[in-house]
Amino acid sequence: MSEAKSTGIGKIAISLAISDYNDDKIIELYQKKGYSLIKGHVGAMDASKIFAAVETAVFRQNIIKENYHEEHALYHAISEAFNGYCRGPVALESVLRTTGLVFTVVRGNLSVSDKKNGEWIAVVLYGLIGSPRRGFEHEAIGMGIQSI
Amino acid sequence: MSEAKSTGIGKIAISLAISDYNDDKIIELYQKKGYSLIKGHVGAMDASKIFAAVETAVFRQNIIKENYHEEHALYHAISEAFNGYCRGPVALESVLRTTGLVFTVVRGNLSVSDKKNGEWIAVVLYGLIGSPRRGFEHEAIGMGIQSI
Amino acid sequence: MSEAKSTGIGKIAISLAISDYNDDKIIELYQKKGYSLIKGHVGAMDASKIFAAVETAVFRQNIIKENYHEEHALYHAISEAFNGYCRGPVALESVLRTTGLVFTVVRGNLSVSDKKNGEWIAVVLYGLIGSPRRGFEHEAIGMGIQSI
Amino acid sequence: MSEAKSTGIGKIAISLAISDYNDDKIIELYQKKGYSLIKGHVGAMDASKIFAAVETAVFRQNIIKENYHEEHALYHAISEAFNGYCRGPVALESVLRTTGLVFTVVRGNLSVSDKKNGEWIAVVLYGLIGSPRRGFEHEAIGMGIQSI
Amino acid sequence: MSEAKSTGIGKIAISLAISDYNDDKIIELYQKKGYSLIKGHVGAMDASKIFAAVETAVFRQNIIKENYHEEHALYHAISEAFNGYCRGPVALESVLRTTGLVFTVVRGNLSVSDKKNGEWIAVVLYGLIGSPRRGFEHEAIGMGIQSI
Amino acid sequence: MSEAKSTGIGKIAISLAISDYNDDKIIELYQKKGYSLIKGHVGAMDASKIFAAVETAVFRQNIIKENYHEEHALYHAISEAFNGYCRGPVALESVLRTTGLVFTVVRGNLSVSDKKNGEWIAVVLYGLIGSPRRGFEHEAIGMGIQSI
Repeated sequence: MSEAKSTGIGKIAISLAISDYNDDKIIELYQKKGYSLIKGHVGAMDASKIFAAVETAVFRQNIIKENYHEEHALYHAISEAFNGYCRGPVALESVLRTTGLVFTVVRGNLSVSDKKNGEWIAVVLYGLIGSPRRGFEHEAIGMGIQSI
Repeated sequence: MSEAKSTGIGKIAISLAISDYNDDKIIELYQKKGYSLIKGHVGAMDASKIFAAVETAVFRQNIIKENYHEEHALYHAISEAFNGYCRGPVALESVLRTTGLVFTVVRGNLSVSDKKNGEWIAVVLYGLIGSPRRGFEHEAIGMGIQSI
Repeated sequence: MSEAKSTGIGKIAISLAISDYNDDKIIELYQKKGYSLIKGHVGAMDASKIFAAVETAVFRQNIIKENYHEEHALYHAISEAFNGYCRGPVALESVLRTTGLVFTVVRGNLSVSDKKNGEWIAVVLYGLIGSPRRGFEHEAIGMGIQSI
Repeated sequence: MSEAKSTGIGKIAISLAISDYNDDKIIELYQKKGYSLIKGHVGAMDASKIFAAVETAVFRQNIIKENYHEEHALYHAISEAFNGYCRGPVALESVLRTTGLVFTVVRGNLSVSDKKNGEWIAVVLYGLIGSPRRGFEHEAIGMGIQSI
Repeated sequence: MSEAKSTGIGKIAISLAISDYNDDKIIELYQKKGYSLIKGHVGAMDASKIFAAVETAVFRQNIIKENYHEEHALYHAISEAFNGYCRGPVALESVLRTTGLVFTVVRGNLSVSDKKNGEWIAVVLYGLIGSPRRGFEHEAIGMGIQSI
Repeated sequence: MSEAKSTGIGKIAISLAISDYNDDKIIELYQKKGYSLIKGHVGAMDASKIFAAVETAVFRQNIIKENYHEEHALYHAISEAFNGYCRGPVALESVLRTTGLVFTVVRGNLSVSDKKNGEWIAVVLYGLIGSPRRGFEHEAIGMGIQSI
């Protein structure tokens, strides 16, 4: 996996989300450049579980400090990512659909070459969304980026 | 870039969208597996130009037939991708923001190992969105997938 | 065209909107039951023209009094009808689509057998929506009902 | 009930939805022209039940094949119809409202005179929506049309 | 608290909502000018409880007559207020957030100096919204105004 | 105007927005407590002008530093405020409505007694929204609060 000087925090989070075998390499590569990265997965028909899974993982791995100032930025990043993931009504169960997804959270500069815009957090949700019936589902992706 | 047996049409479109140097390799790899792929770019404060740029590129490169049945699927895929890209109000100029993005369109099976669910089209928009002021922007991504 | 005792103001407005040859019969039938009805048409890529066309027709034919109390109810009925017509982003031009539609406005009781709930206004938009290219369009309908 | 040469699939679905006594006639008339039509009803405060009721009826009566390619088109048609029916927040219970409605699903050409645009599916929801209190409700309609 | 001649029904409802110690004074002041005013509070993760709390308080204090014509206007005012309060997805629990708020409802003229536009109802929701964790919350406000 | 110990940044911004004669007093009172406050007004049918007016006033009065980290928080606060102000489609001109409003921006702690959650920015829009016809308008309010 090559990487441009201008690689953004979003591309880092997307790359990690769609990576099949290179998770450790991606994480190591960008940790060296000062980023914090995590990847997890969650399956849910109840959307709130996605928010909870991402928040829990982030706090457990100390990606953000457990204060409201930072949690607020994280919440908005998750909310935007989920909004983009849903592409319409921001809902799962009530519109009879379910999802299984991986999430990635990356904290650091806006891009690997940016030093002047402070810290940001990127949340990516990538997975399968569809009817609650095996195989009746297709991929979706959503990303939210917030200053932190 | 390795690739799992189950690589989905969405992951193909995302990979091509965030690729810096491997466009030709990705396109060649998946053309061999029966996919049609294109990549283009467009900058706009007027959202309709993004729809127009994707439609024009798709027709010019014969990704879909120029009939309404297929164009309708394409339109919905673009619309969902743009909705996800915007993560809230589906608007650019009226909420004082602008964007420069690359788009990818992939047509083929739902995944490289799927043969029974017919043809689909995936549209990915990936780029920078922000205030109409240089450098005041961050990344965004949106994807729409439709049966065709 | 038969008619149930419980025919609602919405069904009256829908019937008139989708009628091909029976406009006069429908209007006469329900005028006798105390309703005011109008039907018009408008084509537009600029959504505000739809609002303007309905408002103008309503005022010109004295369906509502030209005061803000009644205009506010009419506006909300048009807005809901247009929202339903769009089935997603409440937009035309910015998402590269255009429409040609007929609109109907009906004022009167909630249903032909209802006397105790006061006056209401129903607005129906029914037409073709699609790409700005002849024949690349399908039908849509939207309805808003407000107390007045 | 007269019928224009250009009667669209949407108008067929709307006519059947608002018909009081002519269901069999409408169904027979359009079956002869190559359409499949069904009509059912469902009452729910939980929106997912509306999706489930339509899907179940469609599969039971073989309007679409039980594969994901066709189910996906049906799901989007239901989703758009429900979106239009709600005219704002795509929700029932959480915004304290409930509904009782009839649904119609029609499969066939875009219009009775169209032969070149392939098959489409139209879903109409028409009923009463309002507070969970008898009589505190008014009519609503929503329609979604998808290529299939 | 001084007051301009043109004070609107919205400003009255907002003032009462954010008032800490002056509730009685505000209520008395505007009752003399012909307004009906109530203030209540509700805490909920389930959004429907907010709708129910406002409706119940309004009926119990006879701000509106318990018929559908007036209840419909009230419902729309609550719905708009809640929409504004949420500033995005019109949801609480499903996007993992909760709220505690005060609500005010004011019925009367559009402004204290307006006599020609009939009666209106204003609903304001003002409170704290955030994660279901003590102190992880910030203020929000929403207002809906309807003719009645 | 009395003030509770727990007065929040949102209540400060709302109070200043609806104040008729006490602007200087409110500004002075909260400047002493460490807040920065501004108030301005803008009339527009083009929504982007509202965003531009608030941003320009904020930069001109040095409420935030002119870097992207802070501008991003401001943009989101304006966007949420405008979303709440619109209470539905986030649009003005395209749905044939216009507005004249005052805006306030307050920067400082989440509440006057809070010291541990860092700095925040609150944006309030309060004004009249309606048809582009004098007097056919009612009040609206929207508020967005972001960590900065």
